[in-house]
Amino acid sequence: MPADSPVSEVRASRPRVHGSLLGVEDLTLDDASAVLALASQLEIEEPLMRARRLAKRRVALLFYESSTRTRTSFELAAKALGADTTLVSSKSSSIEKGESLKDTGITLRALGAEAIILRHVFSGSPWLLEQATGLPVLNAGDGMHQHPSQALLDLRTLLRVLRGGTTQVDAQTLAGVTITICGDILHSRVARSNALLLPRLGARVLLCGPPPLLPEIAASIGPGVAIERDFDRALAQSHAVMMLRIQAERLAGVHVDLEAYRAEFQLSEERVERHPEMWVMHPGPMIRGLEIAEAAADGGRSLIEEQVRHGVAVRMALVARALGAGALS
Amino acid sequence: MPADSPVSEVRASRPRVHGSLLGVEDLTLDDASAVLALASQLEIEEPLMRARRLAKRRVALLFYESSTRTRTSFELAAKALGADTTLVSSKSSSIEKGESLKDTGITLRALGAEAIILRHVFSGSPWLLEQATGLPVLNAGDGMHQHPSQALLDLRTLLRVLRGGTTQVDAQTLAGVTITICGDILHSRVARSNALLLPRLGARVLLCGPPPLLPEIAASIGPGVAIERDFDRALAQSHAVMMLRIQAERLAGVHVDLEAYRAEFQLSEERVERHPEMWVMHPGPMIRGLEIAEAAADGGRSLIEEQVRHGVAVRMALVARALGAGALS
Amino acid sequence: MPADSPVSEVRASRPRVHGSLLGVEDLTLDDASAVLALASQLEIEEPLMRARRLAKRRVALLFYESSTRTRTSFELAAKALGADTTLVSSKSSSIEKGESLKDTGITLRALGAEAIILRHVFSGSPWLLEQATGLPVLNAGDGMHQHPSQALLDLRTLLRVLRGGTTQVDAQTLAGVTITICGDILHSRVARSNALLLPRLGARVLLCGPPPLLPEIAASIGPGVAIERDFDRALAQSHAVMMLRIQAERLAGVHVDLEAYRAEFQLSEERVERHPEMWVMHPGPMIRGLEIAEAAADGGRSLIEEQVRHGVAVRMALVARALGAGALS
Repeated sequence: MPADSPVSEVRASRPRVHGSLLGVEDLTLDDASAVLALASQLEIEEPLMRARRLAKRRVALLFYESSTRTRTSFELAAKALGADTTLVSSKSSSIEKGESLKDTGITLRALGAEAIILRHVFSGSPWLLEQATGLPVLNAGDGMHQHPSQALLDLRTLLRVLRGGTTQVDAQTLAGVTITICGDILHSRVARSNALLLPRLGARVLLCGPPPLLPEIAASIGPGVAIERDFDRALAQSHAVMMLRIQAERLAGVHVDLEAYRAEFQLSEERVERHPEMWVMHPGPMIRGLEIAEAAADGGRSLIEEQVRHGVAVRMALVARALGAGALS
Repeated sequence: MPADSPVSEVRASRPRVHGSLLGVEDLTLDDASAVLALASQLEIEEPLMRARRLAKRRVALLFYESSTRTRTSFELAAKALGADTTLVSSKSSSIEKGESLKDTGITLRALGAEAIILRHVFSGSPWLLEQATGLPVLNAGDGMHQHPSQALLDLRTLLRVLRGGTTQVDAQTLAGVTITICGDILHSRVARSNALLLPRLGARVLLCGPPPLLPEIAASIGPGVAIERDFDRALAQSHAVMMLRIQAERLAGVHVDLEAYRAEFQLSEERVERHPEMWVMHPGPMIRGLEIAEAAADGGRSLIEEQVRHGVAVRMALVARALGAGALS
Repeated sequence: MPADSPVSEVRASRPRVHGSLLGVEDLTLDDASAVLALASQLEIEEPLMRARRLAKRRVALLFYESSTRTRTSFELAAKALGADTTLVSSKSSSIEKGESLKDTGITLRALGAEAIILRHVFSGSPWLLEQATGLPVLNAGDGMHQHPSQALLDLRTLLRVLRGGTTQVDAQTLAGVTITICGDILHSRVARSNALLLPRLGARVLLCGPPPLLPEIAASIGPGVAIERDFDRALAQSHAVMMLRIQAERLAGVHVDLEAYRAEFQLSEERVERHPEMWVMHPGPMIRGLEIAEAAADGGRSLIEEQVRHGVAVRMALVARALGAGALS
């Protein structure tokens, strides 16, 4: 399989749906370029003009896990394009009554939804939803599998600081760039989507963390990915570092000592000072003082807030693309 | 009392509110015809034109029970007409603080709501809300009492397949038609609303289920309703069957054996094959493999997804009617 | 410090944000007059014209405590002005994952929110949010501290019945007026905001309740405030009474007997009859039969529903002001 061909073309038995984004492999680099270009256009478009693009069309948000930034980001993106949105969450819905994902999806389609934005605890569920409904599905995070819109917004962030904000990407765009992803790699869909996407643009990805959170097998996720357990050695080579949230209770489960973790893997003030040119990223929510120190989160090289801003732009483009309104004008 | 006169005219001490729909008896057959005709008009109306009908008017959704399809259906219907909606659910509201339904209703009226869509665990609560507020109330399901918008969408579905989609109904429209409703009749507001509405159009309704879920008294719900405990005998006479969701825990409470239930009352693949002309309906959410088999739910005679689609159209008409914008143009 | 100068100017280390409303002391009386005048204008403005004021701008609702009337009131107010809203509540968000208020606020800003409406269990949290984000924050209730939009809507209500609905207020506007606030003063942010605001317009405020709910120190909240423990003596002097909700479980905690409380402090039918000119107010939610009798809540002098109506108007003005669209046209 060529490095850049969508895995899903192999995996899927039925034809895939145009406009879906289940994993980063759904996008060729030309597709990614188109999404990035559209994001840039929509971001600066006059709001009332922009709101005509999907005026009164319907987008469903189906969230089986709680979320703030991803849900509100997609919701505000869809509303900015003029769409009507409806939110179905596990807290107040038939989900509680045991209805299957398939039937919930078919119901949303029958209600007039033209795309479904799904967050689900099970890896692969967006694919099931797409197959069941034939609708474009935007994966807003599925289990420990992928979070492709996060990888795209991270990419847009990196392109802004490292490549002057270009939207045209190819296999050499990030050649010579090294990115470290540090933390609970094993459970992180953000890490997975980034580790699958960035090397396709020529970047090298270093994964960092203790063995219980980063098994050796992780290096085989794809080309351009390596493990570097020494955080300081990884940082010394990196243009940017992506810190992942640590859930204390999960650490306990895998016998990682919190104090030892902090010493070895926290992005501390000292580490940031030692690498003043390195950019700091975090998908949020952060636990300040655990995986990341206050000074690192709020310092001059922090891109954390900017990542969120790129998220709205990227998700406007993805929603427009899903509803077939993704052409540049 | 004439068969077609609204029960509520008798029951209510204070005058009823125009535009309310608390039970199917609130509608004369002429009213029902008007709702069906308006639904058909709104369904195909150009979305931006449609959104001017209730532009910036306010509709409140008050849900004391969880719901997906009914809530999102009403919400998207109101938004499609241009209304601003607000959702108050038992999960995050003063409902938790013990505020009465009456005071919540008066608050919503004072906030500018011109109609309230209510789902509540207590039978009769929509009537209390209407009396307390003087606002039109659309009953989105009250306890084991009624679910009239469901009955209207079921009617629209039946008219489409059996009567060419006519919107003009009278006491003979469904003459000669038999509908079986099967399952937990005792606890089902859907069964009740359908059993009250369909016979007024000339249909015969057969109720089917084991005695703990279908007591003999149910046959006296009104004219045109009979009990037929043998599911296969019922199906042999039926143009359509409505399957009701079975809650396993409720079955336990009334000493119904789940395996025996499946054998006797599941709409299985075999039963569907034995009656290839019979239409299959279900108000959802379904528990596939319990009351209905996969092949029945997804087969060529299944109307289950279509029911949901009719729901949006019917509810647009009901919301428009509630706000006095129900005239055909 | 002059009586009318904002406390916050003293308290804040960084400059305050224009358009914020954290406490009633944020507003000079001229500011309050402007808000009241804008509320009156917006209330009667043609809805489609009004919806252009903040068309497609973004307002975030951040609710760490459940709420019906305040949340829906702010939400419908923002939507009436044409803004897109998004609701983040503690029930389904990263709040559960331990993200700090600061980071949630920064995220909302990065998502494009131009103002945040915050309800939070901790006193002072709106101030932290404003300092962290630099955005205008509208305090929708913080712990036992303040609820300034409630005080403004209560003021608008009083001005309607006592001063012909004037919107121009000064230090003499309510001279000669006495208002009793009765109930759980200790835990009430509504009481606090009203007791701080009304005396600035010349009103006298009497606080009433048993010592466990109304410690002596409460009288020192500011000038024009006094304690009168005899409810009947307080009512005899009052032009209006504001009743506060009693939470039975909280009473238990402070050893107040519920029956004794009812006898001494309930706004009973008899008390209302004894003072036929006195206006009756309650911020809601009410517990009928506990702090207020049915006849008092629904009587001819009750302003309770009207208060809610004023809430939408006042909050439209506050949201418009927060987004710099508060100028009268």
